[in-house]
Amino acid sequence: MRIVKDILDQKAKITVVGLGYVGMPLAVAFARTTKVIGFDVDKKKIEMYCQGLDPTKQVGDKAIKETSVEFTSDNSKLKESKFIIVAVPTPIKIDKTPNLEAVINACRIIGQNTSKGAVIVFESTVYPGLTEDVCIPILEKESGLICGKDFKVGYSPERINPGDKENRLENIKKIVAGMDNETLDIIAKVYEIIIEVGVHRVSSIKVAEAAKVAENSQRDINIAFMNELSMVFDRML
Amino acid sequence: MRIVKDILDQKAKITVVGLGYVGMPLAVAFARTTKVIGFDVDKKKIEMYCQGLDPTKQVGDKAIKETSVEFTSDNSKLKESKFIIVAVPTPIKIDKTPNLEAVINACRIIGQNTSKGAVIVFESTVYPGLTEDVCIPILEKESGLICGKDFKVGYSPERINPGDKENRLENIKKIVAGMDNETLDIIAKVYEIIIEVGVHRVSSIKVAEAAKVAENSQRDINIAFMNELSMVFDRML
Repeated sequence: MRIVKDILDQKAKITVVGLGYVGMPLAVAFARTTKVIGFDVDKKKIEMYCQGLDPTKQVGDKAIKETSVEFTSDNSKLKESKFIIVAVPTPIKIDKTPNLEAVINACRIIGQNTSKGAVIVFESTVYPGLTEDVCIPILEKESGLICGKDFKVGYSPERINPGDKENRLENIKKIVAGMDNETLDIIAKVYEIIIEVGVHRVSSIKVAEAAKVAENSQRDINIAFMNELSMVFDRML
Repeated sequence: MRIVKDILDQKAKITVVGLGYVGMPLAVAFARTTKVIGFDVDKKKIEMYCQGLDPTKQVGDKAIKETSVEFTSDNSKLKESKFIIVAVPTPIKIDKTPNLEAVINACRIIGQNTSKGAVIVFESTVYPGLTEDVCIPILEKESGLICGKDFKVGYSPERINPGDKENRLENIKKIVAGMDNETLDIIAKVYEIIIEVGVHRVSSIKVAEAAKVAENSQRDINIAFMNELSMVFDRML
């Protein structure tokens, strides 16, 4: 639990990898209390952020201008941090299978720039099993470290509703999972710094991944159903 | 609006047709303030109710024993009331088409025992258009009266969640619709007697019918989806 104390004492930094509509609110929220590195592979985005512009519209230009987040696209900056949150997109391909390019690339960069004692948390939408079956092997290979011994992994699904000013990062309960009890505890305590309504601890990474895919799919089904009803009712009413 | 005043002054009676898990809570709730006839074609049910037993478990034996509802299966009792609520079941047949037997039978009985000035409100789940296309013609034929001139019709979908003690008739907002503005106003004001959280007025009977079928279908989809996920996750996790 040393890491949580160090983060709160501003002796350790949090890194957010991927600064889109998920990563940016996280980075800005943590930067109110802790030291934060905001990493994105996209140099042009980083330049915009350094100029105080928010193309994601999630936090607004003013928040970007005023934040203490260190924006960077320099991979080696990741060495400075022991708590890394991965918030890269996982879109789907034309054949509807997940496009894991960004998450795999993030794992490579993190693996190459991580050291003993790191905690890596994924927020991207994935299928149950991806963190353990895909991410951990890449992290181990690139770092030469052993997961569970040298570094730890967790999953905490993003629940941002893009454009929604009412339901925000801070007031949506956040699901957290860790590869073991100690990791779960660290991840929960770190997120509790920014999530005002608290976190919901679940029993395993797979359960958290399943919760995320259930939430997204249910929303898709509801939207699709309302679209269908709208067409049917338009003809009936 | 005379009818609302008469109901509140206990000079006019409300009749609930169909005393299952929808009709019984309605009858008991209205009977706290107004005079209520509780009608069901099932003589055995009526006998049980007269003995103070609640097989629906929605209100409980005690509430039935203490209620002032006049339980009856005598069709001619419907003549005593100008405000009639139809809460009969509309199950589906084996081929998934709606079984309208109970609602058609209710319309026949009401038509044969109604007189000028009546307001008839349907609560049963139906498809958009059923009240106007099926119920009104039967009511007109059996009564020899003209809908819109001699009697009025409305629709207010039941939203009872059977067995739920938290979300009850009184604290679930009720959608109300009427064939014209005056009827809508009467129906809204009558339901406001019992619905503590108020009513939501919609623009037409078809819109209220559509809202009901959308609500039921969405719940079915959600349940079906969670059942599917449960099977999938059971194999994955």
